[in-house]
Amino acid sequence: MVIIVESGADEQTVANLIDKVRALGFTPHPIFGVEKTVIAVVGHKTQEKTDILATMPGVQQIIPILKPYKLVGREVKAETSVISVRDDLDIGGDRFVVMAGPCAVESYDQLSQIARYVKQAGAQMLRGGIFKPRTSPHDFQGLREEGIPIAKAVKEETGLPFITEVVDIRDIEMLHEVADIYQVGARNMQNFALLTELGKVDRPVMLKRAMSGTVEDLLQAAEYVAVEGNAQVILCERGIRTFESSTRNTLDISAVIAMKRFSHLPVVVDPSHASGHDWMVPALSKAAVAAGADGLLIETHSRPQEAMVDGHQSLTPASFKQTMEELAAFCEAAGRTL
Amino acid sequence: MVIIVESGADEQTVANLIDKVRALGFTPHPIFGVEKTVIAVVGHKTQEKTDILATMPGVQQIIPILKPYKLVGREVKAETSVISVRDDLDIGGDRFVVMAGPCAVESYDQLSQIARYVKQAGAQMLRGGIFKPRTSPHDFQGLREEGIPIAKAVKEETGLPFITEVVDIRDIEMLHEVADIYQVGARNMQNFALLTELGKVDRPVMLKRAMSGTVEDLLQAAEYVAVEGNAQVILCERGIRTFESSTRNTLDISAVIAMKRFSHLPVVVDPSHASGHDWMVPALSKAAVAAGADGLLIETHSRPQEAMVDGHQSLTPASFKQTMEELAAFCEAAGRTL
Amino acid sequence: MVIIVESGADEQTVANLIDKVRALGFTPHPIFGVEKTVIAVVGHKTQEKTDILATMPGVQQIIPILKPYKLVGREVKAETSVISVRDDLDIGGDRFVVMAGPCAVESYDQLSQIARYVKQAGAQMLRGGIFKPRTSPHDFQGLREEGIPIAKAVKEETGLPFITEVVDIRDIEMLHEVADIYQVGARNMQNFALLTELGKVDRPVMLKRAMSGTVEDLLQAAEYVAVEGNAQVILCERGIRTFESSTRNTLDISAVIAMKRFSHLPVVVDPSHASGHDWMVPALSKAAVAAGADGLLIETHSRPQEAMVDGHQSLTPASFKQTMEELAAFCEAAGRTL
Amino acid sequence: MVIIVESGADEQTVANLIDKVRALGFTPHPIFGVEKTVIAVVGHKTQEKTDILATMPGVQQIIPILKPYKLVGREVKAETSVISVRDDLDIGGDRFVVMAGPCAVESYDQLSQIARYVKQAGAQMLRGGIFKPRTSPHDFQGLREEGIPIAKAVKEETGLPFITEVVDIRDIEMLHEVADIYQVGARNMQNFALLTELGKVDRPVMLKRAMSGTVEDLLQAAEYVAVEGNAQVILCERGIRTFESSTRNTLDISAVIAMKRFSHLPVVVDPSHASGHDWMVPALSKAAVAAGADGLLIETHSRPQEAMVDGHQSLTPASFKQTMEELAAFCEAAGRTL
Repeated sequence: MVIIVESGADEQTVANLIDKVRALGFTPHPIFGVEKTVIAVVGHKTQEKTDILATMPGVQQIIPILKPYKLVGREVKAETSVISVRDDLDIGGDRFVVMAGPCAVESYDQLSQIARYVKQAGAQMLRGGIFKPRTSPHDFQGLREEGIPIAKAVKEETGLPFITEVVDIRDIEMLHEVADIYQVGARNMQNFALLTELGKVDRPVMLKRAMSGTVEDLLQAAEYVAVEGNAQVILCERGIRTFESSTRNTLDISAVIAMKRFSHLPVVVDPSHASGHDWMVPALSKAAVAAGADGLLIETHSRPQEAMVDGHQSLTPASFKQTMEELAAFCEAAGRTL
Repeated sequence: MVIIVESGADEQTVANLIDKVRALGFTPHPIFGVEKTVIAVVGHKTQEKTDILATMPGVQQIIPILKPYKLVGREVKAETSVISVRDDLDIGGDRFVVMAGPCAVESYDQLSQIARYVKQAGAQMLRGGIFKPRTSPHDFQGLREEGIPIAKAVKEETGLPFITEVVDIRDIEMLHEVADIYQVGARNMQNFALLTELGKVDRPVMLKRAMSGTVEDLLQAAEYVAVEGNAQVILCERGIRTFESSTRNTLDISAVIAMKRFSHLPVVVDPSHASGHDWMVPALSKAAVAAGADGLLIETHSRPQEAMVDGHQSLTPASFKQTMEELAAFCEAAGRTL
Repeated sequence: MVIIVESGADEQTVANLIDKVRALGFTPHPIFGVEKTVIAVVGHKTQEKTDILATMPGVQQIIPILKPYKLVGREVKAETSVISVRDDLDIGGDRFVVMAGPCAVESYDQLSQIARYVKQAGAQMLRGGIFKPRTSPHDFQGLREEGIPIAKAVKEETGLPFITEVVDIRDIEMLHEVADIYQVGARNMQNFALLTELGKVDRPVMLKRAMSGTVEDLLQAAEYVAVEGNAQVILCERGIRTFESSTRNTLDISAVIAMKRFSHLPVVVDPSHASGHDWMVPALSKAAVAAGADGLLIETHSRPQEAMVDGHQSLTPASFKQTMEELAAFCEAAGRTL
Repeated sequence: MVIIVESGADEQTVANLIDKVRALGFTPHPIFGVEKTVIAVVGHKTQEKTDILATMPGVQQIIPILKPYKLVGREVKAETSVISVRDDLDIGGDRFVVMAGPCAVESYDQLSQIARYVKQAGAQMLRGGIFKPRTSPHDFQGLREEGIPIAKAVKEETGLPFITEVVDIRDIEMLHEVADIYQVGARNMQNFALLTELGKVDRPVMLKRAMSGTVEDLLQAAEYVAVEGNAQVILCERGIRTFESSTRNTLDISAVIAMKRFSHLPVVVDPSHASGHDWMVPALSKAAVAAGADGLLIETHSRPQEAMVDGHQSLTPASFKQTMEELAAFCEAAGRTL
């Protein structure tokens, strides 16, 4: 870290600061500039020691030099992680992966019908919410327990692996039966109790970026899972909160590029929640491929007008099929297969 | 709700829309304007039915008219709620309430010392984190179980009620022994599983606004607690995420005024987390009183330079005392006692 | 517009409101809902009349129905505008347009060298700042008057049309000699005096979105130019201000899609200023093509390490060439030529 | 500045970097840490030299140490500037200053009537827009030239000094006749041509923060005026753009505290534009006093329901009077007179 000393600090204050740095077990390197003094601090940092220095008289600011994450960073592991969902399905490799399905599982008929057409159109995974976190307690919260056998039946029928959200620690075990990937929603990105438990499970976890989470926050949240032993984490960009009101959230396409550079984990984009508009999903999907994402999470519904949740951002079967066809050319341009 | 019809929609599309409105059990009131058509929809709405209409051909936008919360809104209960923490301590009444203490409980000596001087300076409640949610898994996470007997001892000693954060559903019971108010942190504002469980507890809950939570989101989160039967909810403004980097977060002082207008629940301000700078806390505390808040949550530490967490935003004993003295005049100007 | 009446409003208040609507020359359509009353207002609106209604007792909120722009909107002109820069160069047509060059014109040698390699690599236009608006008055403000003959010479030499920024009304005439497109920077998006003057010039104007401008704000700013008679406006997405700090700004890729849907004007993306990182520019450029943009504005410098402004976001000649090569495949996937 | 070297950089790269630092006339101080190398750079910096270093191979990031502003900073001038508007009116001293009036000057009768009641209620200055920058070109743009004699007459009548906005360089001279303070609006905060011209005028300038301007941006904009010789700059906080939609903008109350700490210039708050709601203005005004602001800019109208602009955020004469009365107690608590 580098300590920037306040402009008016006298010699004694600087001397005390240097002593404190040494007392904490670090090596201080003071540099006296034309107008400012800085102290470079060498040694193994902890947040606690940094916090202590931050409160010392004469300290204007402390600038960390190291990234606050380790296990999920490229500095520790340069090669990109390829996460195996099943023998025939990897995420993060040459093949671009599309996970598609309804926002919420509503019935066997609904899920089965959707699963069949998304598979036919080329999707490699099925998505569907069994437990739905909703902004209002008065809204539909998913089929809950009753959704499990439905998802199980449709998986068997179609052979598609399944991704679904877990919102409560107590549901992890129950969902183990059907979830090939556990999804952590944006609202729970910093639900550290949940992340810690998922770090003990032997199954991939897809972690969605919080509406106000920086790329660095997301990587630290991923670190919570990894530090417990589960390195199979997939990052998901799904839009952040900004002042712009023509979209539900603002898809941060640059974040995809930043995540791929700073972390070895695969990155997936969710254009449906990012935009909130079905008519934006095809173009955003192509942009995600072009930016270097490893996959997409797309909402589609056989009858959007009867969907119980988020029908307005779900593609119809026809537009899903067309989107998949158009994506192929962009995947090829990006040197990937679909 | 009001449906805005797309500009190009033909008669048949509008007729279908009107039929659908009727089929869902509502009464449609179409109005044909100079350039646009709108359909006012009368009847008891649900999110599901609204979602269905949103996907109909010809719909440009749906504008909700009713607030998405009920129990916590002024429209249902006009008089301000006064929440009783103990026989001698209410929040939301004429008396302005200061909750002060360290970010984290570190030891018996630390908490005891701090509790004594905050009480002497006039604080009515003690705060202190036993379970600490931290952005990085490598940081100090609180004393956890070991903190409980410490908090219990200091409470008995000083007679101060205690507020502490709960981050895991499984800790609710354990914390019941010491928490006079359960605090839900900003990162868990939409951890609906946690909110639902706290709705079943007979004790006040202080709900902090998420870094990206709108006032409306916060009120809906409060609704999750209230709908389970626990109406003792206190709202807390603690800063939102914006582009400004001179503060850790941006304290949204207008939100205090909005919350007081739209909801009957008491509102508390946390100037320490909002700003991240000890030198801003006194002025922000005064602004909170002036804006109409019902209380403050302030971080203070007997030795900020040795604090294990957030020392740089903690007031020293001397500056806490001075802040309390200065606050008195502003409370008086606001027609309240301290 | 639709007026939402406050919940507690009595009959007399509603009657007064309805009278006022009529007095302003509109036709009121009151609808009495289960819990709320709304009044749909039919007639030709003006902002002044809307503002007057907004202050009436009993008004909770006024919801506008019409878009606040006319001339630049798709509702007035459905077909996409193709803007002719020169006989051999259109923007908004099938051909994707790349405008490339240095952030600032520094010398004849510099501009000439850069112009030659960008032309060779396939760029159709040269960019270069002659007047530079800088956040600090202590920074290099461009060559100013001295840059004009340089740009003129390089244009003649290479045959490339030139785009450059105008920051002062008094410079419009002087720049007319070299600017094939006048660029209005993000900081001047709402400098209405400048926009109005550019509306009187017979030459295309490229209007950059302000760091805090919504898509709707940008379209209204474009309207300022169009209303004066100059319909040759090109919109430019260059990133907005958000809390994310890993990029200089956040490129709002969805805005490209929104602008293309709501307006008939062409849309260009500036990945250099949006990200502030040279290593992000290639991937963002591809994403812009995929999202449906009509062109790119890219910073490149023959010797970024000696650039006087923004060298860290400028592509080297080699990486510019490679980016152009890679873009070709994405343009093809998008059904366009480069 | 401090250069953070990329993790993988080899010895030669670091050596080259050190050479470059020296070649630019600086003294390099390399520090080799456990995991990272940093180079502290001593000497007089310029943005150009910093930009050059930023593009060198091996540079991960450059951290500036000095504030980017000089003249307006506390480091150069520790004592608070008191700006004299007239012999009997200072801004930045012990007396808290209220500038009040209509958003726009509409007629002699309107301005005269408002001026009289704001004076009677204790306001020390009159505000009123003669040139109005509006988001849409279709909205009322102010009386323009015709407003000048009106403002002049009302000033003479009441003896109140007058503040009004200048939006076009060409109007500076004309407004000199009536403007005791030139106001620069949020949309023009970085209209550097305008700032530079105002730096040559011998009259105070009030500079409003842009909707997306950081505190640091605002101070650099103020520097543009000061560097030309006009040190009479007043800063104005008027709300920033965030995701929150219950207010028009988000009043950044912490920014008032930051500006007062980092700059010696006086700070004024505009609660009317910040919130967009008349009912929020009184509480926000009190919060501004409590936070340490030096004055307020308040919109009021004798008949808000007939105001041509922003009537919904204008106080009625009665509520303006009451607000002034209530403010007195808060000014006293803050140790100031009103």
